[in-house]
Amino acid sequence: MTPSFSTHGGDIYSRDIQYDFSANINPFGLPEGVKRALVENINRYQAYPDPECRELREAIAAREGVTTDTVVCGNGAADLIYRLVWSLKPHKALLPAPTFSEYERALLSVNGDISHYFTREQDNFSLSGDFLKAIPGQDMVFLCSPNNPVGNCVDSGLLTHIVETCRRCGALLVLDQCFLDFVRDGARYAVSPSQNIVILKAFTKIYAMAGLRLGYLLCGDAALAEKVRRCGQCWSVSVPAQAAGVAALRETDYVSRTVALINQERDFLSASLRTFGFHVYPSQANFLLFRCELPLDELLLRDKIAIRNCSDYIGLGRGYFRIAVRTHEENAILIQAIARCISDNG
Amino acid sequence: MTPSFSTHGGDIYSRDIQYDFSANINPFGLPEGVKRALVENINRYQAYPDPECRELREAIAAREGVTTDTVVCGNGAADLIYRLVWSLKPHKALLPAPTFSEYERALLSVNGDISHYFTREQDNFSLSGDFLKAIPGQDMVFLCSPNNPVGNCVDSGLLTHIVETCRRCGALLVLDQCFLDFVRDGARYAVSPSQNIVILKAFTKIYAMAGLRLGYLLCGDAALAEKVRRCGQCWSVSVPAQAAGVAALRETDYVSRTVALINQERDFLSASLRTFGFHVYPSQANFLLFRCELPLDELLLRDKIAIRNCSDYIGLGRGYFRIAVRTHEENAILIQAIARCISDNG
Repeated sequence: MTPSFSTHGGDIYSRDIQYDFSANINPFGLPEGVKRALVENINRYQAYPDPECRELREAIAAREGVTTDTVVCGNGAADLIYRLVWSLKPHKALLPAPTFSEYERALLSVNGDISHYFTREQDNFSLSGDFLKAIPGQDMVFLCSPNNPVGNCVDSGLLTHIVETCRRCGALLVLDQCFLDFVRDGARYAVSPSQNIVILKAFTKIYAMAGLRLGYLLCGDAALAEKVRRCGQCWSVSVPAQAAGVAALRETDYVSRTVALINQERDFLSASLRTFGFHVYPSQANFLLFRCELPLDELLLRDKIAIRNCSDYIGLGRGYFRIAVRTHEENAILIQAIARCISDNG
Repeated sequence: MTPSFSTHGGDIYSRDIQYDFSANINPFGLPEGVKRALVENINRYQAYPDPECRELREAIAAREGVTTDTVVCGNGAADLIYRLVWSLKPHKALLPAPTFSEYERALLSVNGDISHYFTREQDNFSLSGDFLKAIPGQDMVFLCSPNNPVGNCVDSGLLTHIVETCRRCGALLVLDQCFLDFVRDGARYAVSPSQNIVILKAFTKIYAMAGLRLGYLLCGDAALAEKVRRCGQCWSVSVPAQAAGVAALRETDYVSRTVALINQERDFLSASLRTFGFHVYPSQANFLLFRCELPLDELLLRDKIAIRNCSDYIGLGRGYFRIAVRTHEENAILIQAIARCISDNG
C-alpha cells in the first residue's frame, strides 16, 4: 500500500491553521541573510538555473569537508530520495519502522522488495543490535538519524557496526541526517560519506526553507553522485533555492541560536506533556513523539493548531502524535490548548 | 546515446556571457507583478508548499477552460516530461527529429523503444502526412508545436489527422505547447486535452520564469493526472513558483506586448540573417534556426554572446544554430557581432 502523499505534516492549505506544529521547521523562520539574498537575486530568476549548481555545491563541499564532485543538490531532500532509488533500482531494501514514509514510496515505485525492521515501543523505538542481522542480502539500507517521527539518534557505537556490516555485505547505507543540525553535539552521531555510505541532508528544516525546496546528498563515490545527478531533468534546483542555499550556509549564528532554543524548549514541552500523563519518547531533534488516547489532532483544530497524527506510520498506530518544537510563546499556547482539550474531554 | 545534460542552451554559469541568445526566454524578464508577488510572499517560503497546488491549479484551469482535476503542476515542464513517462513507462514511442532532447532522455530512462520520424531539410523540417503512418503500434507520440529548435507549428489540418490517428491506435499524444504563447493567433494551432491527448505548457519561457521552475500538464483524463501527480515526491513545486504562477496569469498586457515584440523582431533578425546569405528556417516562435558554415557560437563568445550550436540535435548536424529573439537593441548587437565574425573570417 502506497501511503497517500497528503499524509505528511504541514497541511496549512486545506485548513485554517494559525500554529503549525505538524511540520518540523525551524521556528525562527527564514534567516534574514537568506531573505536578503532572495530579493537581491530576483533579476537572475528569469534565466535557467545552473544545472551543475556549481557555487552552491562548492559551498556545501567546503562546509562538509568533502570534494565537490561527491555533492548532489536536489529539489528538497525528497527529490533526492527518489533520484537515488531510481538511479540504482534496488531489488531488496531494509527500512526501520516507524520512519519517514518517502523511502518506502520511492522503493515501491521501482518495485523494490522491502523488509521492515520494527523497533519496539518498550525500547522507545530505538534501534537495537539485531538490526545487524537484517542487513545481509539487502541492496540498500535506509536509516534516519535523528529518526522521524521519534527524534532519537542511532547510537554511535551501533552505527559503526551498521556501517561495517553494510560494507561487508555490499549494501548501500543511506543515512538521512536531515534533522542532525538540531542535535546538541550532533557531530557525535554523524558518519562520513564513503564508497557505500550516502548521507542525505536538507536546508528545509534547519534553515526554514521548506517552501524553497533544497536538499543535498553526499555520495562518497563520485561516480554514484554523477549517476544521481543525471537521473531526471537537469534543472531541478531553482535559482532562488541555489541563491538561498549559498546565503544560508553563512548563517552560523542563526544555527547556534536555533540549537539552544530547540534543546531548551524541547525540555519544556516534554516536561509539560508528561504532567498530562502522556508517554513522551526521548528525542534529540526539533520534534517530539508522544502517546495520548484523545483525538488530539482533531480537538486542537478548534484552536487553529495543527499537530501530526502518526497513526499512518508503519509500526505505529492510533494514539501517537508528533509535535514540532517551536518558540516558547507558541509552545506555551500549545500546552494550554492541550490542557483545555483534556479538561473538556476528561 | 543519452544526450549530456549540459548541452542545452542557457549556460551563463561556466562562461562570461553578457547577451544570452542560447535560451528561449522572454526578453522582457520577469513581469513586475511576479516580482512583487515573490517579495510579498517571502514569509510563506518557510512552510512546505501545498502539494496539491490548489490556488495555482484553479487559476490555470480557469485560464485554460479545463477542470482543476486534470491539471498537474511541475518543477518546470521538464519535470513533467519525466513524471509522465515514469508514470506510464511506454514500451514504444514516436518522436520527430529534430526536437527537444528531454523527451528522448526521459524515454530512454525507462528503456522505451524510440522511433524517430526525420523531418526533411528541404521541407524546412516541417512534419508531413507520412508521419501518420508511423503512429500505429506506438504507445506514446511526442510532438512539439512550435517545435524546438525550428520554431514551426504543426499544420492544424495535419494535427487533426494526428489526433484522430492516435485515438484510433490507442497512442497517447503528448503535445508540447511551451512556445505556443509566443505565436500570433496561436489558438489556431492549439488542441484541447482529451482522453488520449496531454498538453504540456510552461511558465518558463513566456513569463521569463526559467529560474523559478514551473510548468503544467493538461491531462484531459483526471485519472492520468492523478497518476502523474503521485509519481515522485509530493512537494515538487516550490512556494515561490506557485505564488509567481498565480501572479503571472494576471499579466495579460505583458503577454500581448511580448507577442508584438517577438513577431516584429523575429522578422528583423530573419531578414538580417538572410542578408548574410544564411538559410533561415520559417519560425512562428521566439527563436530562429539557421545555417552557417562558420563556428559562429565560438566566434561570438569574444563578444560575450551565447547562441545555441544545434549540432547535437538528432536529425541536425554541423552548421545549424539557434538564436532567441530578444529586444531590438540586443538583436542589433547580435547582428553587428555576426557581421564582424563574417568579415573577420571571410
